[in-house]
Amino acid sequence: MIEPLSPLLIEPAVKAALLEDLGRAGDLTSQATVPSNKDALVVMRARQPGTVAGLDTARMAFRLVDSELRCSVQNPDGSDVAPGDIIMAIEGRARSILTGERVALNFLGHLSGIATATREIVKAVEGTKARITCTRKTTPNLRAFEKYAVRCGGGVNHRFGLDDGVLIKDNHIAAAGGITAAIESARGHIGHMVKIEIEVDTLEQLKEALGAGADIVMLDNMGPDMLREAVAINAGRAVLEASGRVTAQTAGPIAQAGVDIISAGWITHSAPCLDIGLDYESSL
Amino acid sequence: MIEPLSPLLIEPAVKAALLEDLGRAGDLTSQATVPSNKDALVVMRARQPGTVAGLDTARMAFRLVDSELRCSVQNPDGSDVAPGDIIMAIEGRARSILTGERVALNFLGHLSGIATATREIVKAVEGTKARITCTRKTTPNLRAFEKYAVRCGGGVNHRFGLDDGVLIKDNHIAAAGGITAAIESARGHIGHMVKIEIEVDTLEQLKEALGAGADIVMLDNMGPDMLREAVAINAGRAVLEASGRVTAQTAGPIAQAGVDIISAGWITHSAPCLDIGLDYESSL
Amino acid sequence: MIEPLSPLLIEPAVKAALLEDLGRAGDLTSQATVPSNKDALVVMRARQPGTVAGLDTARMAFRLVDSELRCSVQNPDGSDVAPGDIIMAIEGRARSILTGERVALNFLGHLSGIATATREIVKAVEGTKARITCTRKTTPNLRAFEKYAVRCGGGVNHRFGLDDGVLIKDNHIAAAGGITAAIESARGHIGHMVKIEIEVDTLEQLKEALGAGADIVMLDNMGPDMLREAVAINAGRAVLEASGRVTAQTAGPIAQAGVDIISAGWITHSAPCLDIGLDYESSL
Amino acid sequence: MIEPLSPLLIEPAVKAALLEDLGRAGDLTSQATVPSNKDALVVMRARQPGTVAGLDTARMAFRLVDSELRCSVQNPDGSDVAPGDIIMAIEGRARSILTGERVALNFLGHLSGIATATREIVKAVEGTKARITCTRKTTPNLRAFEKYAVRCGGGVNHRFGLDDGVLIKDNHIAAAGGITAAIESARGHIGHMVKIEIEVDTLEQLKEALGAGADIVMLDNMGPDMLREAVAINAGRAVLEASGRVTAQTAGPIAQAGVDIISAGWITHSAPCLDIGLDYESSL
Amino acid sequence: MIEPLSPLLIEPAVKAALLEDLGRAGDLTSQATVPSNKDALVVMRARQPGTVAGLDTARMAFRLVDSELRCSVQNPDGSDVAPGDIIMAIEGRARSILTGERVALNFLGHLSGIATATREIVKAVEGTKARITCTRKTTPNLRAFEKYAVRCGGGVNHRFGLDDGVLIKDNHIAAAGGITAAIESARGHIGHMVKIEIEVDTLEQLKEALGAGADIVMLDNMGPDMLREAVAINAGRAVLEASGRVTAQTAGPIAQAGVDIISAGWITHSAPCLDIGLDYESSL
Amino acid sequence: MIEPLSPLLIEPAVKAALLEDLGRAGDLTSQATVPSNKDALVVMRARQPGTVAGLDTARMAFRLVDSELRCSVQNPDGSDVAPGDIIMAIEGRARSILTGERVALNFLGHLSGIATATREIVKAVEGTKARITCTRKTTPNLRAFEKYAVRCGGGVNHRFGLDDGVLIKDNHIAAAGGITAAIESARGHIGHMVKIEIEVDTLEQLKEALGAGADIVMLDNMGPDMLREAVAINAGRAVLEASGRVTAQTAGPIAQAGVDIISAGWITHSAPCLDIGLDYESSL
Repeated sequence: MIEPLSPLLIEPAVKAALLEDLGRAGDLTSQATVPSNKDALVVMRARQPGTVAGLDTARMAFRLVDSELRCSVQNPDGSDVAPGDIIMAIEGRARSILTGERVALNFLGHLSGIATATREIVKAVEGTKARITCTRKTTPNLRAFEKYAVRCGGGVNHRFGLDDGVLIKDNHIAAAGGITAAIESARGHIGHMVKIEIEVDTLEQLKEALGAGADIVMLDNMGPDMLREAVAINAGRAVLEASGRVTAQTAGPIAQAGVDIISAGWITHSAPCLDIGLDYESSL
Repeated sequence: MIEPLSPLLIEPAVKAALLEDLGRAGDLTSQATVPSNKDALVVMRARQPGTVAGLDTARMAFRLVDSELRCSVQNPDGSDVAPGDIIMAIEGRARSILTGERVALNFLGHLSGIATATREIVKAVEGTKARITCTRKTTPNLRAFEKYAVRCGGGVNHRFGLDDGVLIKDNHIAAAGGITAAIESARGHIGHMVKIEIEVDTLEQLKEALGAGADIVMLDNMGPDMLREAVAINAGRAVLEASGRVTAQTAGPIAQAGVDIISAGWITHSAPCLDIGLDYESSL
Repeated sequence: MIEPLSPLLIEPAVKAALLEDLGRAGDLTSQATVPSNKDALVVMRARQPGTVAGLDTARMAFRLVDSELRCSVQNPDGSDVAPGDIIMAIEGRARSILTGERVALNFLGHLSGIATATREIVKAVEGTKARITCTRKTTPNLRAFEKYAVRCGGGVNHRFGLDDGVLIKDNHIAAAGGITAAIESARGHIGHMVKIEIEVDTLEQLKEALGAGADIVMLDNMGPDMLREAVAINAGRAVLEASGRVTAQTAGPIAQAGVDIISAGWITHSAPCLDIGLDYESSL
Repeated sequence: MIEPLSPLLIEPAVKAALLEDLGRAGDLTSQATVPSNKDALVVMRARQPGTVAGLDTARMAFRLVDSELRCSVQNPDGSDVAPGDIIMAIEGRARSILTGERVALNFLGHLSGIATATREIVKAVEGTKARITCTRKTTPNLRAFEKYAVRCGGGVNHRFGLDDGVLIKDNHIAAAGGITAAIESARGHIGHMVKIEIEVDTLEQLKEALGAGADIVMLDNMGPDMLREAVAINAGRAVLEASGRVTAQTAGPIAQAGVDIISAGWITHSAPCLDIGLDYESSL
Repeated sequence: MIEPLSPLLIEPAVKAALLEDLGRAGDLTSQATVPSNKDALVVMRARQPGTVAGLDTARMAFRLVDSELRCSVQNPDGSDVAPGDIIMAIEGRARSILTGERVALNFLGHLSGIATATREIVKAVEGTKARITCTRKTTPNLRAFEKYAVRCGGGVNHRFGLDDGVLIKDNHIAAAGGITAAIESARGHIGHMVKIEIEVDTLEQLKEALGAGADIVMLDNMGPDMLREAVAINAGRAVLEASGRVTAQTAGPIAQAGVDIISAGWITHSAPCLDIGLDYESSL
Repeated sequence: MIEPLSPLLIEPAVKAALLEDLGRAGDLTSQATVPSNKDALVVMRARQPGTVAGLDTARMAFRLVDSELRCSVQNPDGSDVAPGDIIMAIEGRARSILTGERVALNFLGHLSGIATATREIVKAVEGTKARITCTRKTTPNLRAFEKYAVRCGGGVNHRFGLDDGVLIKDNHIAAAGGITAAIESARGHIGHMVKIEIEVDTLEQLKEALGAGADIVMLDNMGPDMLREAVAINAGRAVLEASGRVTAQTAGPIAQAGVDIISAGWITHSAPCLDIGLDYESSL
């Protein structure tokens, strides 16, 4: 089961999104056309196959618009759905539902798109030990939500920011004067709870990184053969992370090379929205 | 020329994104590996063809990290770039540049992706009177930025929220008791600066909407032939907006049918990030 | 019936006002003099004739101070009240009521003052087609509330900000190089949901504005005769808005000239507070 | 000279007001009609006689829109101005000036209206020892600004909130079981830096309040004769504050009765805006 | 009984502290190790003797993490507790309790430490008329809470900020040109609800301050003999506040000298945390 | 050299603290007594021996009050100072300096107190490999600042929150069904950048934790002999952290037992403020 995000994180983001949509005058259309005493039962339905993520954000949107709306989940976060599957039903004042609809769907579609993209790669590596992870290439101000969606898709999370892990890249290496110098410098700087990862392009660099005691080595843009060689060189010392042009097609061979982690930036920054619609079942 | 967004809108969003990335301890890696007195000159380079949007957000990210960084734009917002083209150069403390890099790229890549998607459709309708527009299907809390990116791509903006335009959809029509009733009810409710748009599925509905005096009629999911018929029925009375499954491929025929506006949701909710990298030109 | 403002808009403004009043130590006087277990029933009573607006803000103030206070409305927003009429009753802990009283009355009196001023002009034009509207001359950070109060008084709203309508004034005309140039430039810039209004001082200007296709023309400081002429020239093409020195006395003749809209800045920026008092009915 | 408000207080209020006006898309009209390279010199001119207050808020509005605008004050806060007098000149990009104009004028007109109302009463009591003071009947979330405007008008400030002074009214007295009990209870509750004021309706109550050691006694709705008697009874012991229906007409006799302080609620909650316009001197 | 702080003040501070602790991913440990359906009953127990303060902050922490947690107070704010005494019991989901535990204890321990330090000095002056007060030497952004804790310990509060009282120190005296000049200047500047305190080092200065009509005189760093002399000179005119190196040891003699108020900075800025632990009574 | 905190973290905290102190009316005393054109040169001087931390917060306080104040640092963060040593000099308007003084000193004294406490223990373990670390027992909403102060004192940081490290305590172990189960459950839950620490009370537990592959083992409340035994059992596998009753007196023997890390809660929650004063050198 996927651990829900704290409402303390969800509420301010959803509230801001509702205010963004309500503007200074609220939902003119629904106020003008929908009688205030009219109730409705609606359902959110997948219009594409995919994986659900973000129901708590959608529920929060409806609840903040009208605390008397009732939501019942049919396919919780992490579920695989087929076109036509009902994800969540909402019942209550029709006007409130219409007012909250777009914000609820914008969150749910965006996060489910990320979960769907993640799940696709996760399935492609099934049977291997490789786990799929995300990056810091996230949409501004939605990182906690997008990382959560990655978990819903079956992935695991890379670091959440610049402060909860060291990730030494080529520019850092150049600035520090080499791989060993960079790792040693990092180790002297950080606390004992922080891991050090370093990005390498060659097997020579991998060897130096292992010698310097990196916790994780990111093998950037290596093909399956080179990755296999890297796995052999590593001999279980560091965690090995493969990165670069990872898709559902390329992930299988990468995983079979024996790496521990495969990271993909596009699952957070370029996954298309999952198409989810809101259908009126009846006017109560 | 595209009007820049006010810094009053840009600063809080970029500041929040930086805090999201810096967390509680800041950029551990750069602090540990890059000497504080080391300067650098870096350039942001397109790695794909596309259209630039969001340079002010990127510049704000660097400026907020270190007010002494100097940015010089080579290809301003709205420019078409080819792989390898330099978009902006940044010069100053290497550590500051590395700290701001990810947030700057996350904004710039996301917004340029939207501009690129928009431009593609805009080009497909060149020579017709049709203008390309976006929807409210935007990423939560980034609407003003994504609508701006649509403008950078050559599109125009639909309403910004629930409060600055009336858009009557099928559920509103049903609740109000018909097209005419809905439009009249809306007209009685709103101020004189607000326009009324109504969504229709059939030409019968179009006729009723025109009779009731809609300012804009959205023709949902109609093929080019039906759209042509709609244009004829309209005879210049209302603004006609075509929507539904609009891509660079389908947009041409839709535009040639003679509609005024073509709207596409995916350009804001599903456009992939434009691939832009940050290259170190030299260590000064 | 007047559509209520969303609690998402009301809550932060009322919370800020309570914190402004509570300061860093809260209500010293009530804490010192009123036993914490003492209950009371109080009523808000009009001390002047007027129109009620803002009960949700008053109720929110009491609810945020003490969620157990019970409010029951006698004269909802939009009601005309006479001196002595009860507007709302509040029951619960006496200390909580005293703590919330001033903020509740400050909101209610301010907004009811605006509704009262609006209603007065609205009544003066009864029997004509003219509608009364407000401007952007509102009290800083209270615009959504004051525009709502105008609706409570029977008025309609002009644009809410710089972004939801184009209003071209003399300085814009001068900068653009004339009325036609300004309107055409605006039309090229904005989306299809945005209306264009232009302010004119003479009938010549009106003709040019109509020729350029303005949606609304603001006739500034014209007397009834000139307005009648303007209505004839317009012949139903644009919406006509009369502005300048509008009071309950001058509004009748202006309306009878046949304009569609009459705007008045003072109803939001200079309407005196409606005198409403809080009376203790009994100590329970 | 009037002490300026801290920019730490001014900036957030003005920034919020600008965002309220800019909305999600900024100043459509100026962007569309005013060339971005056009400069202008404008002046804020009084159109009515009055007293200036709030220039720092107006300046902040222009500065936040465009940090390159230059403001030069002709009549600082606290000045009496006649119709036609220039208050402040602003020079720089025409478009920026137009964008900031309304927010600047909304603050300046509102606060100058309060200063003007205050000054009128202050002048009416010249030659007496009475000082004019405001109340907590202020516009929500503008208290610090309105209290500042009272100072600009020559008044002094009453308490700023529920926490920086004790003011015992009839309901507190009733709840505490009498005047003496209320004062004693308050004294036991508060710190040594807090003063105790009590509101009385009769001279008997005044005597009891003096006996109980009130620092200030508010004499509510007493005529000049009764006030004179109260002054005699007081014999210099407490500070005496007269309140109730205070206007420029009634203030003189009240002051001549010998009270120390005269308070008026309407100067903050009902003073009409001072009419100030923004004139274009030239296009540079 | 101690008046509780308003939830309007407590909620934002506690919410911010929870977000500080939850970061971007929440409580990894509890999510990973504690089944979501497991309930627990825990108690907060004093591990040292002391005085309780801050239970509403602790309760708010648990409530914000999980609104279904139930708290029952055994020893309310202001109680003296012995090691082993239960202060509050909490019942509900074990995972929620663990997530809220640290923030709850950080508030409760910090504030109880201040109450304990205050109580110690308060006890040392029992039987005298002296009251113990705090200063503005508080932990940034916790002033309202720390001043509340002082009240829980039996102290009273000095001014809350720069704006609710005048406190003239040596640098102000020097700048104003002497004690009399400083007091007169202050009196002309402030409203009638504000008291004037002045700090003096010598008995000569005391005499000048009394002559100039100071409301309170702070006698800085005077020994018991000199204080006694000051009390005699004062002869009941001003409130006398002794300050400087006040501890539970020195407070008795200072109080016996006859001063009204004794202030101590360290009780807010340097009081050690009261040791309070959270014990699991049972897994339900 | 200690890496400075980002101004993005410092500015909001210091701004909030200034607003807390300025309240609604600002610095009454300085406004009333200090001429606005008077300049001064002041120095912050240590009145006790200690270690400096927080100069950027103090500088920010002065800069936010008055951007023209000039600060020059004599003893940067991390310096050991003796009584009388100048830490920083500030020059500019006397009134501004007086207004910012208290907030600047409250931050600087609090953080320097923590640095001083840390340094004391750091010195006690000099010559061993043990590093001193802090805990999550920090003052609410000041964690990033207090952790920074620990670094200034020569310590390293433990995790910053619940989300950047797993720390399994007795209650988690009980809930998970044992040490091995808890560690395995955690490993399955978290990403590859997160370390797992577990708290143990006995050497048996240590062995189980090592067998289960804990990254760090916290040895709670063990004496030097038992710690030495633990070090031998560990044989370099996990990082060993000793905790419980750590002071400058006890730290030496603990460190000599061979542990890697020694953690102390009191250095953040109970370190007394370092006494630093602000002296006027001259009135310029």
